[in-house]
Amino acid sequence: MKARILNIGDEVLHGLTINTNASYLAKNLQLLDIEIDQINVVGDDEEKISKEIIDFINSSVEVLITTGGLGPTHDDFTKDVVAKVLGLELVVHKEAKRHLNKYFPNGMASVNNQQVFFPKGSLLLANPLGSALGCYINYQGKHIFLLVGPPTELRPMFENHVEPILQKATKVKKISQEFLLGGIGESELEEKLQNFYQKYPTIKMAPYANLGTIRFVVTALKEDEKIFKEAIHKLQEIFGDNLIGDAKYSIEEHLVETLKKRKYTISTAESCTGGMLASMIVNVSGSSTIFNESIVTYSNDAKIKYLQVNQKTLKQFGAVSNETVIEMATGLRFLTGCDVAIAVSGIAGPGGGAKQKPVGLVHFAININGSIHTESKLFHGDRNMIRRRACVYILWKTISYLNK
Amino acid sequence: MKARILNIGDEVLHGLTINTNASYLAKNLQLLDIEIDQINVVGDDEEKISKEIIDFINSSVEVLITTGGLGPTHDDFTKDVVAKVLGLELVVHKEAKRHLNKYFPNGMASVNNQQVFFPKGSLLLANPLGSALGCYINYQGKHIFLLVGPPTELRPMFENHVEPILQKATKVKKISQEFLLGGIGESELEEKLQNFYQKYPTIKMAPYANLGTIRFVVTALKEDEKIFKEAIHKLQEIFGDNLIGDAKYSIEEHLVETLKKRKYTISTAESCTGGMLASMIVNVSGSSTIFNESIVTYSNDAKIKYLQVNQKTLKQFGAVSNETVIEMATGLRFLTGCDVAIAVSGIAGPGGGAKQKPVGLVHFAININGSIHTESKLFHGDRNMIRRRACVYILWKTISYLNK
Repeated sequence: MKARILNIGDEVLHGLTINTNASYLAKNLQLLDIEIDQINVVGDDEEKISKEIIDFINSSVEVLITTGGLGPTHDDFTKDVVAKVLGLELVVHKEAKRHLNKYFPNGMASVNNQQVFFPKGSLLLANPLGSALGCYINYQGKHIFLLVGPPTELRPMFENHVEPILQKATKVKKISQEFLLGGIGESELEEKLQNFYQKYPTIKMAPYANLGTIRFVVTALKEDEKIFKEAIHKLQEIFGDNLIGDAKYSIEEHLVETLKKRKYTISTAESCTGGMLASMIVNVSGSSTIFNESIVTYSNDAKIKYLQVNQKTLKQFGAVSNETVIEMATGLRFLTGCDVAIAVSGIAGPGGGAKQKPVGLVHFAININGSIHTESKLFHGDRNMIRRRACVYILWKTISYLNK
Repeated sequence: MKARILNIGDEVLHGLTINTNASYLAKNLQLLDIEIDQINVVGDDEEKISKEIIDFINSSVEVLITTGGLGPTHDDFTKDVVAKVLGLELVVHKEAKRHLNKYFPNGMASVNNQQVFFPKGSLLLANPLGSALGCYINYQGKHIFLLVGPPTELRPMFENHVEPILQKATKVKKISQEFLLGGIGESELEEKLQNFYQKYPTIKMAPYANLGTIRFVVTALKEDEKIFKEAIHKLQEIFGDNLIGDAKYSIEEHLVETLKKRKYTISTAESCTGGMLASMIVNVSGSSTIFNESIVTYSNDAKIKYLQVNQKTLKQFGAVSNETVIEMATGLRFLTGCDVAIAVSGIAGPGGGAKQKPVGLVHFAININGSIHTESKLFHGDRNMIRRRACVYILWKTISYLNK
């Protein structure tokens, strides 16, 4: 089954409201095994809306969900246009009258009068949070839902009234799994999977890259469960240590979980990332069991003062070097008594780069109870992206080492 | 002049990515006096994309901007479809080759090869932040722009390359100014400006809120310059100390500039924000002249160890209290010798809230060479939003105090 989403309203078309309704509906429709055909946004424009409804009726798409244009103002005419196109009369619905009387206990403004009219034969969808009700029309076997615009009103309307109707209508059963990957780019992954895609034509796979991690979504029909399981198994092999775990959780959450299991504490000593790594860990609720303290040592003096980095090391190898980050991580364990110490130093740019040490070069060391891993890597992007990508890469590397 | 926006990509269609590109483009096109005709989202689906391009060509709309589908993977085929529909050949562009060689100094994966092909006669649009370039096609007087998907790459591409082309095409001469505001919400601002909007009907004003700051854009036709200047002057009065400065610069950049002017150094001692404040400061290139070191003191022990917070204070008032943050800031100045010391402690949630100290409550202290300001404030949103909003508010407060 396929669905189309039509968001109606000048505020969305003009970019004043970010269209979170579309992504909410798309995600939730897919959970009902409904494929998203298209998302269209039009303004408060009768002709445009009308064209979209006609286009839907003439298509093979079975479900249409509109949002917005159900309010009381002069530019709300979703119901009017839909009724006109479908050849339905707009009639007073008693439930709408009752709802409005209850919603405006002191009497309503005359503009609200139009809110009691709905297409004849339509089923009203309750909205305890606003004056506008939604409605459902079954038109020649197609399912048309007119929903309200404000996300806080739309979401319960969808969950309480739209979902039950669609659940009955769809009979397709799907299975899916989402992996979170780290330490690998989209094109490298693509290359790794080139043959694999061809081998499993019935399995849908899609990578979604996001500044250093990839969410990899695998879906199939329930009837293909056996081959799906086989594919999942093979994928895990191919991913290897790039596989962090279930994509329901962020990379930070995976790290915190891994540390909790081992009863390890973690601290960071950051130069170019300037606290971003610590901040990512702290963003996980409950991180206080594994995280107590961290240091931002941006200057060389701070690296010496807190972490006892040898002045000679800084002079000979520079602040951005394996030698320095190893000393930083060791000093950090001494300072904080943590089990896992991470030290980072790099050139985030745009200035400060050189041929030997270009912008984007980041050195880091991970000291796990005395066992040290150190690495340097070049990251792309602007200053913030380089820092962010370095953090994500280091988090992945830390998880990977902890799991070894 | 009218424009249509076509967002291409399964991740947007499936709701995994919220379509911020659409609202960004819509807002900025309108500043160029271009009307938004429609916004459509389709998946990585050749037929669908093709239908949209044909529909655009047959319409009276003059501008089409697509986003996404320019990457190296098997489901990126925006260029192919556009070339096919317009009857253009895909040919190797030398600039693209040069760009990719520079982007992948160690050689690129074979999948990236397709990224050097563009429709014949098209103008490439630079992208210093990613491997994919954009392109511009003038087709029978219509303007077609194929832009990249990631918002961080799309925005500079639009501002540096699309805007100049469209400015020439629309011929409208405009003047504009952008203010960055802090410490004020959108509805509060709206209330402050209610009469003002009516007084200057020829001046276009739009606030863009973003987690704690507001970018306030004022535009007018060049012929209205006199009244524009008057309005700008009045606005500055109304904004008062909520005005941070030019919105070309971020709030962090404004803080670093302010500190540099005074030759002050800054340090942070962070609990709930966990390094985010330090990280925001370090994200400004050249911050090393005003920033040397900072501490994340998440546990009570760390607050005592590094900042000499009195155990009694923690016991009597709690870690989230004015008393504690004052001692943290004072201890921080002692530890680091900085001029400006910021201390933060709060309840970021979702757990840990109580009636007296609910989730979102953040206490902070700013100690400027011994003169102390302390404040508590309740922030809304999820854990990350609360932390981010607190940081932005504190940065604004610090700038405001430094300017007093």
